[in-house]
Amino acid sequence: MTVEHATNPAPRDPDTGVGVVISIDAMGGDRGPAVVVAGMAESAEKNPEIRFIVHGDESVLSGLIARRRSLAGRCDIRHAAGTVTMDDKPSQVLRKGEGTSMWSALESVKQGEAQVAVSCGNTGALMALSMMRLRKLPGVNRPAIACLWPSRNPQGFNIMLDVGADIRADAHDLLQYALMGASYARNGLGLERPRVGLLNVGTEEHKGRAELKQAHEMIEKAANGSFDYIGFVEGGDLPSARVDVIVTDGFTGNVALKTGEGTAKLVGDFLKDAFSNSIMSKFAAILAMTSLKRLQKRIDPRRVNGGIFLGLNGTVVKSHGSADATGVSAAIKLAFTLAQSGFQDRLAARVAQGTAAATAEGGA
Amino acid sequence: MTVEHATNPAPRDPDTGVGVVISIDAMGGDRGPAVVVAGMAESAEKNPEIRFIVHGDESVLSGLIARRRSLAGRCDIRHAAGTVTMDDKPSQVLRKGEGTSMWSALESVKQGEAQVAVSCGNTGALMALSMMRLRKLPGVNRPAIACLWPSRNPQGFNIMLDVGADIRADAHDLLQYALMGASYARNGLGLERPRVGLLNVGTEEHKGRAELKQAHEMIEKAANGSFDYIGFVEGGDLPSARVDVIVTDGFTGNVALKTGEGTAKLVGDFLKDAFSNSIMSKFAAILAMTSLKRLQKRIDPRRVNGGIFLGLNGTVVKSHGSADATGVSAAIKLAFTLAQSGFQDRLAARVAQGTAAATAEGGA
Repeated sequence: MTVEHATNPAPRDPDTGVGVVISIDAMGGDRGPAVVVAGMAESAEKNPEIRFIVHGDESVLSGLIARRRSLAGRCDIRHAAGTVTMDDKPSQVLRKGEGTSMWSALESVKQGEAQVAVSCGNTGALMALSMMRLRKLPGVNRPAIACLWPSRNPQGFNIMLDVGADIRADAHDLLQYALMGASYARNGLGLERPRVGLLNVGTEEHKGRAELKQAHEMIEKAANGSFDYIGFVEGGDLPSARVDVIVTDGFTGNVALKTGEGTAKLVGDFLKDAFSNSIMSKFAAILAMTSLKRLQKRIDPRRVNGGIFLGLNGTVVKSHGSADATGVSAAIKLAFTLAQSGFQDRLAARVAQGTAAATAEGGA
Repeated sequence: MTVEHATNPAPRDPDTGVGVVISIDAMGGDRGPAVVVAGMAESAEKNPEIRFIVHGDESVLSGLIARRRSLAGRCDIRHAAGTVTMDDKPSQVLRKGEGTSMWSALESVKQGEAQVAVSCGNTGALMALSMMRLRKLPGVNRPAIACLWPSRNPQGFNIMLDVGADIRADAHDLLQYALMGASYARNGLGLERPRVGLLNVGTEEHKGRAELKQAHEMIEKAANGSFDYIGFVEGGDLPSARVDVIVTDGFTGNVALKTGEGTAKLVGDFLKDAFSNSIMSKFAAILAMTSLKRLQKRIDPRRVNGGIFLGLNGTVVKSHGSADATGVSAAIKLAFTLAQSGFQDRLAARVAQGTAAATAEGGA
């Protein structure tokens, strides 16, 4: 994945010759390229090793980048005239997407110029284009989107996948999700031996769907030292400290993700109401400001910004369409961490190895 | 459903001859019969019309009831020696459940002595026994469990079903859930024209499972004046003010319910941490006490205590196993509201009528 491309050398550090290159789709988000460039600048300040290939309207991007001192000499702009909008259907984008900033951003990963691509664009279109341009990893039938979930664990987050790449998943797909999720937890969250759970409606043996029982056995067999399989977990365990990676199909995962976000927002809004209720409570809010800001930070969706596409020949980070500079910077940080750890090669190796173990006679 | 049973007259008001009779399984919860009787007493104080048939160990119950003035002359105790525990498997309970307080409580509804049964017992066992003793309502293939969800709507709650009666649901089942949920919203929440939505992963036409597309068309056809069908909704809409009744299969509904509860609890715990963070924040917490209590009340799971079994020949309210007296009282209040409105007969009529409309040529 790090082969140099002859005509477009990656913008590595001129002194050391090394660096992590992230490919950025600068045009896709709801808030436009200025916010994306601001997020890049935040990341560049914190990580001297980071370099960017930036895809989009060159006349706009060169101006925005020139105004950020931290980005000086660290960006390679690739002009792309087209933009994939939030309303474009994946099927349209597959037919007419060439020449868009999204297509171009994936191309840099495909050509080995960049290790990871980051886009704020339309999820469906980005997944469809990623599948077409990067292709599925050998042995993976359905790629997945993994998200981070605020949790009681020391690392602050749990991982859940799939949260919407595909609405179906059979037992073999769920096994792949377990292997990919465990690899992501090791490389993205730094957990040496992540604990993996399979989402179900009850922990009793007699409950659950047939494919879940089958996946349960397959994942148990595949868990040979690189991760622990803790069995079935329930919706209430998503933020729990007894699991790090939660495996489910994309339909259930997407409903759970949006339910969790919706509930957190509801409680947050009720809290605001409570504090603007009386003069006394407004005064209390001022006194508790520091503590409330700390709380806000713990459940801030911007901190967990960055769904990851797993199971392709290349890593793609999907940032929220409405992300601000802090959100974009969080997504880039995640991309940087994964690129630095050599995640893509490790993931491919784990998938190949784990699938062999789960399907071998008598286990491994 | 109000036919008198010769040997066991319902304990109606001696002056007026009328009253609402609730059948109580007093033994099933985690906290034992004392908490159940305390909840009955709370309800009895608030509702002079309420009467109880109480099932369980007579020697224990008569002592507990005698100590509550509000229950004097309003309870008919039926001795049942056995108790269904939280660990009993539904299959065991079906074989050996006769003589338990749960079985006996359902029998009072079956015999028409009581309008609604309330139990804190094991959900799986209660559903299995309810199916066997009360039987399915004509036209209903899969009964459902409906729960209340804190929301931004004026009524304070939305309804979601199924949250775990069955892990599968085809298009016809989802239609039944829509009809039953709408009837529950009218009679339980007092909404004249509830808005019904179908849970999906996206609002775009090209997304979602085949059975959801089919159910979408069937529910649209059935919505003829008694409710509005607003189409697909997502996980984030569960607490929203644009929908009153959310329809989904029992697997997805159960995951969503537990995810929502888990998230609310996580945010609540983080909030407590924030307020015990410093002397300043502790002082602020004291000042904001009234407002925080108001917030707590809005998201208090005890207020939404009471899953309802719909689609049987009789209404059963399932209270949380760990409910305290306030929780039990909330479940009884819900049972009382439904009994008073003649819910069971209305539900049966709506299901028959709505199914005919959805399957009629050219709609109705």
